[in-house]
Amino acid sequence: MERTFAFLGPRGTNTEEAARLIFQEKGNRFLPYRTIPDCLEAAAAGKVDYAVVPWENSLEGSVNLTLDWIIHKIDLPILSELIMPISHHLVSAKREEPLALSQVTKVLSHPQAVAQCHSYLHEHLPHAEIEYVSSTAEAARLVSERFEEPWVAISAMQAVHVYPVTLIAENIEDTENNFTRFIVLGKKPLPFPESEKYKTTILVTLPSDFPGALHQVLSAFAWRRLNLSRIESRPTKTGLGNYYFVIDIEQKMDDVLLPGAFAEMEALGCQVRFLGTYPVFVKERNGARISLR
Amino acid sequence: MERTFAFLGPRGTNTEEAARLIFQEKGNRFLPYRTIPDCLEAAAAGKVDYAVVPWENSLEGSVNLTLDWIIHKIDLPILSELIMPISHHLVSAKREEPLALSQVTKVLSHPQAVAQCHSYLHEHLPHAEIEYVSSTAEAARLVSERFEEPWVAISAMQAVHVYPVTLIAENIEDTENNFTRFIVLGKKPLPFPESEKYKTTILVTLPSDFPGALHQVLSAFAWRRLNLSRIESRPTKTGLGNYYFVIDIEQKMDDVLLPGAFAEMEALGCQVRFLGTYPVFVKERNGARISLR
Repeated sequence: MERTFAFLGPRGTNTEEAARLIFQEKGNRFLPYRTIPDCLEAAAAGKVDYAVVPWENSLEGSVNLTLDWIIHKIDLPILSELIMPISHHLVSAKREEPLALSQVTKVLSHPQAVAQCHSYLHEHLPHAEIEYVSSTAEAARLVSERFEEPWVAISAMQAVHVYPVTLIAENIEDTENNFTRFIVLGKKPLPFPESEKYKTTILVTLPSDFPGALHQVLSAFAWRRLNLSRIESRPTKTGLGNYYFVIDIEQKMDDVLLPGAFAEMEALGCQVRFLGTYPVFVKERNGARISLR
Repeated sequence: MERTFAFLGPRGTNTEEAARLIFQEKGNRFLPYRTIPDCLEAAAAGKVDYAVVPWENSLEGSVNLTLDWIIHKIDLPILSELIMPISHHLVSAKREEPLALSQVTKVLSHPQAVAQCHSYLHEHLPHAEIEYVSSTAEAARLVSERFEEPWVAISAMQAVHVYPVTLIAENIEDTENNFTRFIVLGKKPLPFPESEKYKTTILVTLPSDFPGALHQVLSAFAWRRLNLSRIESRPTKTGLGNYYFVIDIEQKMDDVLLPGAFAEMEALGCQVRFLGTYPVFVKERNGARISLR
């Protein structure tokens, strides 16, 4: 069965790699969209079956645009999550003689990728000029187009499959602690195999002027021994100091514990919105495949 | 006594207006810096006495760059907070004949400001092209420089004091719920008058693998009836799922309650870092002065 996926483009991004890792069946089609809202709106409007967007990064934190769009604009359940290590690679245009680092005059990439390769650039390319562009994939595209220039890009591995560029150096990032969580959203359920690890995500609005309300909400989870892996506050946009809380619970939706906790929170005057219960996929660093855990 | 303040530039920004509102004594000097890290580093290195930077906005949420720099890079206490309503205004270059809206061919501003004036632009300037620039102040500067063009900028009121531009329309924002919290940081204490409202901000690191740890932390505040106005999680950058929590407590540091809560949290294995205890200033919408409350 053919399925279509919107991903945060352009082609050659980490999000494309994530989408293709989770959905390897033949016949799937992956369509780049220019922005996170564009991806989510395409899935909400039925132009594609599913959207794949970044959700949280271990260095940069939550992706607020994804959070805000899911909270305020669309009503699509989260169907799965993929945790993927983020690596950066140095690429140049394909050429007859490989480009030596000493020849390089310019490094192109997204500001975050440049910052995350600071030590490598300082050691190996101190003489090169840095040029910031809108994505690591755009950097690879520009380098491949201006193939006569001694330029390099810092890119995702996916860019090598998409643009006529060649790898010069692999894994040039300063830290191995760089992971991104991607989520898949869509109206139709997806037939995933059983996983060892599930999450349930909810959005909670506290009653106003309620001292200690968040404490009471957390009590509803704590005495049931439900573990929370993330609590993120986002503004309701109704005034300074009013927040939604996005809460990840480390288990699948069940018939007893979670409905009980949600009912208790509602009795306290909170609003609870269910955002999804879904399996978690993990790609290990240097692993070729993903695993369920 | 002359004091120097670094603010997030360029000249004519909301941050400059905030800095000048809090510190109206003669002889104070206000210096624009290009980025939030540049402001904070200038104060940390003693190049200026104080830094004034945005901290949280009611529509966009916390300013992650400010949070991360305070957490990871510098050790400067927060000395005060100013809550300021954010308004947007339409300005053109000064000209002999005032520019009519029907003549306008282009609107320049920061993407956030454009988004926040969507209804006004849709109604009054549907024919005009939109051009995004790096700040609302930069938009005013460009419009004043290209004075022969029928262009307008969406800017802060401060831009009118700084660039040769004139107001065409005031308060064109879609919502009145737009407020920004600015904070002042520096090594030397500032002699503020007594305020009715104080806050204390701390940074808490939870022990790893500690289910319900955040619930226990909040218990330490709840049973003392200490109200929290904000809990913000930021990544520790050591791996996905490890967070700091920035917590605002709605009272001044005291000798009994807060030290007791901090000691309890440390006994549970948390690390607690004190970021400051400080008075809160508020500028009312359409008010000319700020008040303590």
